[in-house]
Amino acid sequence: MSSTAGQVIRCKAAVAWEAGKPLVMEEVDVAPPQAMEVRVKILFTSLCHTDVYFWEAKGQTPLFPRIFGHEAGGIVESVGEGVTDLEPGDHVLPVFTGECKECRHCKSEESNMCDLLRINTDRGVMLNDGKSRFSIRGQPIYHFVGTSTFSEYTVVHVGCLAKINPAAPLDKVCVLSCGISTGLGATLNVAKPKKGSSVAIFGLGAVGLAAAEGARISGASRIIGVDLNANRFDEAKKFGVTEFVNPKDHDKPVHEVIAEMTNGGVDRSVECTGSVSAMISAFECVHDGWGVAVLVGVPNKDDAFKTHPMNVLNERTLKGTFLRKLQAAL
Amino acid sequence: MSSTAGQVIRCKAAVAWEAGKPLVMEEVDVAPPQAMEVRVKILFTSLCHTDVYFWEAKGQTPLFPRIFGHEAGGIVESVGEGVTDLEPGDHVLPVFTGECKECRHCKSEESNMCDLLRINTDRGVMLNDGKSRFSIRGQPIYHFVGTSTFSEYTVVHVGCLAKINPAAPLDKVCVLSCGISTGLGATLNVAKPKKGSSVAIFGLGAVGLAAAEGARISGASRIIGVDLNANRFDEAKKFGVTEFVNPKDHDKPVHEVIAEMTNGGVDRSVECTGSVSAMISAFECVHDGWGVAVLVGVPNKDDAFKTHPMNVLNERTLKGTFLRKLQAAL
Ligand SMILES: [Zn+2]
Ligand SMILES: [Zn+2]
Ligand SMILES: [Zn+2]
Ligand SMILES: [Zn+2]
Repeated sequence: MSSTAGQVIRCKAAVAWEAGKPLVMEEVDVAPPQAMEVRVKILFTSLCHTDVYFWEAKGQTPLFPRIFGHEAGGIVESVGEGVTDLEPGDHVLPVFTGECKECRHCKSEESNMCDLLRINTDRGVMLNDGKSRFSIRGQPIYHFVGTSTFSEYTVVHVGCLAKINPAAPLDKVCVLSCGISTGLGATLNVAKPKKGSSVAIFGLGAVGLAAAEGARISGASRIIGVDLNANRFDEAKKFGVTEFVNPKDHDKPVHEVIAEMTNGGVDRSVECTGSVSAMISAFECVHDGWGVAVLVGVPNKDDAFKTHPMNVLNERTLKGTFLRKLQAAL
Repeated sequence: MSSTAGQVIRCKAAVAWEAGKPLVMEEVDVAPPQAMEVRVKILFTSLCHTDVYFWEAKGQTPLFPRIFGHEAGGIVESVGEGVTDLEPGDHVLPVFTGECKECRHCKSEESNMCDLLRINTDRGVMLNDGKSRFSIRGQPIYHFVGTSTFSEYTVVHVGCLAKINPAAPLDKVCVLSCGISTGLGATLNVAKPKKGSSVAIFGLGAVGLAAAEGARISGASRIIGVDLNANRFDEAKKFGVTEFVNPKDHDKPVHEVIAEMTNGGVDRSVECTGSVSAMISAFECVHDGWGVAVLVGVPNKDDAFKTHPMNVLNERTLKGTFLRKLQAAL
């Protein structure tokens, strides 16, 4: 039992007071975990584009003041009532799409969209009592996707924590908490490219690189990286990307460029940018008859995915996915 | 060797001279089959909505004069050079989506979109020489989807004919040539509902009824038929439909009605109308996490399939299909 259990912990956190304004390092009060909650000491956290996205809050509901962060690694400080899976000292990674283990989704082999703990970017409070565990001089500070890892201590639902081997270096494995699992999982568990196949990856950030790595592991022979930033291409080669397409270099739509490179289209595509035009290109660049496009990137609130239905009828498949946990890795 | 082999055959055909104008029974000349072609005596033909659609030519490229018809049964009269799979006297069903057996699609387990013989509604001529085999007093009459069965004799590429057991009654099995195979195949081979699952069928015409029958065979426990025509509901019960939704009876969108009936959405849906709004409803009415929507109906040229990308991201799958042959049935 840690000496802080049951007590409010005052610690440092990076607080976003307003959309798009620099985060401010503040002293925050972190309340003890309630039923089925766990308080975690965050040792390492990384910055994911999804944090930036909701901090900018341009296409999203603004919810401030808020503590962002969801890609992290930490150690359990104390647990709330009813928590039996974890105990103080356990090494954990927070995951923004949790599992209650009891709903139809959690019992389904296909779904990762738990009724209780699925990602909810509009909710800034804990499920238990609809309140925040963070406060500054009594003013509540909102949570973000149930993780809020830009704080030395955070409170997370037990279903949103993956226990890991304490031998794993937390400074490195913290990226498994979002980007890597999302990208790698989208390719390995959803797109499932066959050996020798061609795969297009839209967006070569952390998620896209992990998606490319998934294609490489699957034995894809052509992995086409698509990005507007030419500087990303060299790094991407290390993750298996064999060819690059910068849409800026072409007069025609990128799906046509890819169709020409691949005799009609790639076998699989994975969209990791969240741009709706990239989503449409990712769908339209897969080969008719057997092509599968997987969407991973988070869209704006007002976006519309739009394509001619004939592109669907021509036996293309469109799938979406949220974080797919990698049992083997965790 | 029939006495007509190698000769032009003059016979009756129902000719569409103009879009939307009544077909006219005419005497047409049917040229002998060329390389890889087969001339078929059509004994039975049925009318499919796709014929009506291209005859109306409202949302499609008009191509007239033309002989429609693609759902039929007949007997081989003579074969062209190189045809070894069929001989005069064989019973056959024409199929508008053929198989060359050699292209990447034909060799793929997933695709039914043969590079050579996939459906092409804009082509009114044979592939061999880019000409029609039908004429009236020397004026060429266009073919329709390579079948043109509204004629006593027609010429078809050998890859667009399925040989059937001569014991099968042609007046009954002719409907396997399009509607039944399309609907049944879409459910059995693409949607693949599990035992005990829920399935929504949009459109209760021949294709939709066959799709419902596929759901019944698969052991679906709830089969929800959606149609604007209430008269179709009684007939649909014979094909396994257990519940009916008439969008006209509701103030809210049909996907919301279905979501309420099914605690969040059906496991599978099959869209058999070709209406783009029905396509969107069919996609949006499947359950997040695991739902699969299959589009079968043929859209208009200018239609746009439009949905919020979050509907995809929430782990729904959208697939399209053309005619899936039912090996067991043929
Ligand atoms: Zn992330
Ligand atoms: Zn759950
Ligand atoms: Zn038809
Ligand atoms: Zn082929």
